[in-house]
Amino acid sequence: MFITFEGGDGAGKTTQAELLSGWLAARGHEIVRTREPGGTTLGARVRELLLHGGDEIGAIDPRAEALLYAADRAQHVAQVVRPALARGAVVVQDRYIDSSLAYQGAGRVLDVAEVRELSEWATGALWPHLTVLLDATTELAAKRREARGGAADRLEAEAVEFHAAVRAGFRELAQQDPDRYLVLDAALPADELHARVLTRVTALLPGA
Amino acid sequence: MFITFEGGDGAGKTTQAELLSGWLAARGHEIVRTREPGGTTLGARVRELLLHGGDEIGAIDPRAEALLYAADRAQHVAQVVRPALARGAVVVQDRYIDSSLAYQGAGRVLDVAEVRELSEWATGALWPHLTVLLDATTELAAKRREARGGAADRLEAEAVEFHAAVRAGFRELAQQDPDRYLVLDAALPADELHARVLTRVTALLPGA
Repeated sequence: MFITFEGGDGAGKTTQAELLSGWLAARGHEIVRTREPGGTTLGARVRELLLHGGDEIGAIDPRAEALLYAADRAQHVAQVVRPALARGAVVVQDRYIDSSLAYQGAGRVLDVAEVRELSEWATGALWPHLTVLLDATTELAAKRREARGGAADRLEAEAVEFHAAVRAGFRELAQQDPDRYLVLDAALPADELHARVLTRVTALLPGA
Repeated sequence: MFITFEGGDGAGKTTQAELLSGWLAARGHEIVRTREPGGTTLGARVRELLLHGGDEIGAIDPRAEALLYAADRAQHVAQVVRPALARGAVVVQDRYIDSSLAYQGAGRVLDVAEVRELSEWATGALWPHLTVLLDATTELAAKRREARGGAADRLEAEAVEFHAAVRAGFRELAQQDPDRYLVLDAALPADELHARVLTRVTALLPGA
């Protein structure tokens, strides 16, 4: 089974992915906890370029950006996700195709259909069985990012309008694909969110 | 005007590109001498990953590889080639889309039409006015690479069959697009090759 967590930075993706992984592991499932970008060694280098490339790189062209994310994704699916699924492991992942659609598509200047085609080519059209969207208001996400501390990366430092456009993009994706998506209000307590994720996951597990 | 030089490593692309650039510069043209991969700061980092990434990266998935080349290309066209052409400069470039088609398409496992689509998306379908193919036998190219010395990068170290497939790929591309291509026998002396390039270039120059 392939489960992805989506949402803006600060929505609580990592917390929920960890809680779910722990629960599944305790029930004897092999878990592969991973993320994009940066889930492979090649991907980590690409992620570094994308998020912390520094001033000497200059502005990254929107198509170059989308292609770098797609390259990270192709390597990750080939090297990590597909082998894990083939041996029966559960893949629990932060961010996947939907992030590219929401960030590069809705938030930027590119055609969403083209960005989707790119990711489908990169992955051989591998879609998750379940995508949990942690839907956070821009205020909540900003507060959580601040609480987390550390320097903001290039995407985090974007304007409020950008984050609002990304959020709208995610919500639209979820509406278009309700069978795959579980949309949760990120303002709920972590244990309440975890319980709702489990309800959906147990319904999907073999023998449930 | 946008002029590209293509062919395997050791075919003499750089020598001919330099000779042409010098000739055009002496006639008052602004020249932008550039190359792919690695013609931008971002691209140089991507090129480093592709050619000298090292063992810790592991095998690069063919689609990830094609996407990285396309990302380099998108950035290069947006940051270097289009601005140069817009101000009337002549761009003289080592390698472009045709290299991806020959290397990632013919030499590897990917569909050439898909690789072409990827590059056309990356560049907004910007094609050169002239592409000079320096067609070298695998023996000649190997001899030149040895003479040049230094450690072989990942692509150079590929087997003879791979280089032969790349050469066949370039020749097929040239056959499909004779108006854009000038195919030259790389075994000819450099000054003879230069003269043949000039014949074609002067016919293309405004006012010729």
